[in-house]
Amino acid sequence: MYLPAYASADREQCIATWGAHIFRYSDTWDDAHQRAIAHAANEGLYYVHPFDDIRTLEGQGTLGLEILADVPVVDLVLIGVGGSGLIGGVAAALKQTRPGIRIIGVEPAGAPIMTVSLNAGRLVELPAVHSIADTLSPRALSERTLDLALRYVNEVALVTDALMVEAMRWLWTECNQLVEPTGAAVIAALQSGAVEVARYAAPVAIICGGNVDVACVFAGYAVE
Amino acid sequence: MYLPAYASADREQCIATWGAHIFRYSDTWDDAHQRAIAHAANEGLYYVHPFDDIRTLEGQGTLGLEILADVPVVDLVLIGVGGSGLIGGVAAALKQTRPGIRIIGVEPAGAPIMTVSLNAGRLVELPAVHSIADTLSPRALSERTLDLALRYVNEVALVTDALMVEAMRWLWTECNQLVEPTGAAVIAALQSGAVEVARYAAPVAIICGGNVDVACVFAGYAVE
Repeated sequence: MYLPAYASADREQCIATWGAHIFRYSDTWDDAHQRAIAHAANEGLYYVHPFDDIRTLEGQGTLGLEILADVPVVDLVLIGVGGSGLIGGVAAALKQTRPGIRIIGVEPAGAPIMTVSLNAGRLVELPAVHSIADTLSPRALSERTLDLALRYVNEVALVTDALMVEAMRWLWTECNQLVEPTGAAVIAALQSGAVEVARYAAPVAIICGGNVDVACVFAGYAVE
Repeated sequence: MYLPAYASADREQCIATWGAHIFRYSDTWDDAHQRAIAHAANEGLYYVHPFDDIRTLEGQGTLGLEILADVPVVDLVLIGVGGSGLIGGVAAALKQTRPGIRIIGVEPAGAPIMTVSLNAGRLVELPAVHSIADTLSPRALSERTLDLALRYVNEVALVTDALMVEAMRWLWTECNQLVEPTGAAVIAALQSGAVEVARYAAPVAIICGGNVDVACVFAGYAVE
């Protein structure tokens, strides 16, 4: 398992308990990705892409099926955009089952990869991303995730870093859920009015992403 | 609303959004409690006790009703012991509905207020408590919570601070739930074997208590 430098120690420890070998001398997502591909090629291993793999996408899609089971009347689903795998898999599952459900992606204004790709109708590589969540995303969609977005995503809303952090605080204070900035992006879109839900009967927002480093919190609970 | 000094800034802010006046020059739970009683007496206000009030206990009891609705076959419920209001209300609701359900309280080994009170069969005041959760509990049960414990709690398990913190870490790493030490006490009891659940068909553990200060985490998400 290749991890970029920004992955939290908590996540590394969690992955390690599943028996994975961790490689962590990569600085960025792109770098970790390239090193993992090279490693797999050199050793004849199968490379599991974190989002651009049909099996990964199908796994994400099961979340869409769970939503349909839990909220049969769902008519709007908000999904954060990181690597675009979560939204691709979930949107495909929802739309293939019930084409009338509206799918809205939410991404950082400083890393609008899906917005620019959908506007262009083709793959576009961002020269750079400028967001508190900048290390969480590659700078371009893949052929596969672009195709899914073009077919199944109705619109994409943008939220600023400040709004995402405000939404993070709200989720912690009101719901006792501590999530990463992109995990709170859907809440930011609702709080800011970037997405209006009043005319929907049963809107659902997926809050996903707990890659938060809480080592400083546990330091306060040192047991003698 | 009187808060002891250890209450987190997050909680204070949350309470303030509901329009409460916050008084916070108290060091301990006992002190905040006494000051609130005096304040209420001086101004002719109704004092809402955080656990030793029939209406507070009835409110806690609704959690027992929710468990019965969600898990109709429940036969064991583990509940952390802090002020003893949560366990008192929930145990009463469960046992009055279904006397066969086993209720196990879990409390810090260094603050065994319910253990010593049930063993004595009467109110006992601990001279002191020595636990990472020491500020969370008064040093004695009340007449009312002792009565509830005697009638509805089958046994009490003790867990060490180290086990509670280990359980906190597990809840964060595996479930993305960040809770306070007594909130994780029930998990500590399961992980340590202090409570054996193998012979129960449908055990339920209540994870309650999010009084964790995460200011240091949010400091890492400062937006320019």
